[in-house]
Amino acid sequence: MMTDPIADMLTRIRNAIQIERPFVDVPYSNVKKGIAETLEREGYIWDFHVVEIEDAPQNILRVNLKYGPNGERVIQHIKRLSKPGGRVYCKIEDLVDVLDGLGINILSTSKGILSNREARKEHVGGELICEVW
Amino acid sequence: MMTDPIADMLTRIRNAIQIERPFVDVPYSNVKKGIAETLEREGYIWDFHVVEIEDAPQNILRVNLKYGPNGERVIQHIKRLSKPGGRVYCKIEDLVDVLDGLGINILSTSKGILSNREARKEHVGGELICEVW
Repeated sequence: MMTDPIADMLTRIRNAIQIERPFVDVPYSNVKKGIAETLEREGYIWDFHVVEIEDAPQNILRVNLKYGPNGERVIQHIKRLSKPGGRVYCKIEDLVDVLDGLGINILSTSKGILSNREARKEHVGGELICEVW
Repeated sequence: MMTDPIADMLTRIRNAIQIERPFVDVPYSNVKKGIAETLEREGYIWDFHVVEIEDAPQNILRVNLKYGPNGERVIQHIKRLSKPGGRVYCKIEDLVDVLDGLGINILSTSKGILSNREARKEHVGGELICEVW
């Protein structure tokens, strides 16, 4: 059993971007779908699809990775913050800009999986899943 | 000198999709930009950028290629119709659905570069640049 499926997702995304793949597959989970939705809302990926695999125990989340005008990776950095062995939380009042607004944090909150910008608007804190820029 | 830069653009797109590249570069021209704009409006590519290359005689058109839920190429087929050695035109009344609406034709018209659907709405015919599905 995988100890940290979210860390695995972020690593797969990092590796796929490194070798300029157009998309990357990860085993489906609701939390990962929430992360993908946040990445799409914040413009870090094109979109994603839930792919049903016949006779397989788990569906696939297929993420369409984005590249910019100079072929640059739109995701230059994606790093796990909270970990199974060391959970990290952030209160509403501590939600600050990431890299002066150039980056985001993704949080698991009572209102779903949100970016730090969205969490501030919704007036919720939560667990800091990862940082992205 | 290249005899048919548009055929070259379509070939580069076909080849890049074949090997699942996230984007493809072609030497810039206004007609090619019009084709890219039409492909974007019709949902066949994510988007494109005009990239200026310092000290180079020609800019680059960078096209972000799209892949679907099953990793399938959103452009399965892209083929030149009108050619320098044999121009093909289509009158308004001859603008028919391509593959029952699953595909498109791209036309050079008096109102710019348009898909067959758009040309019909604009009531113009024109030169049939290529077919896409």
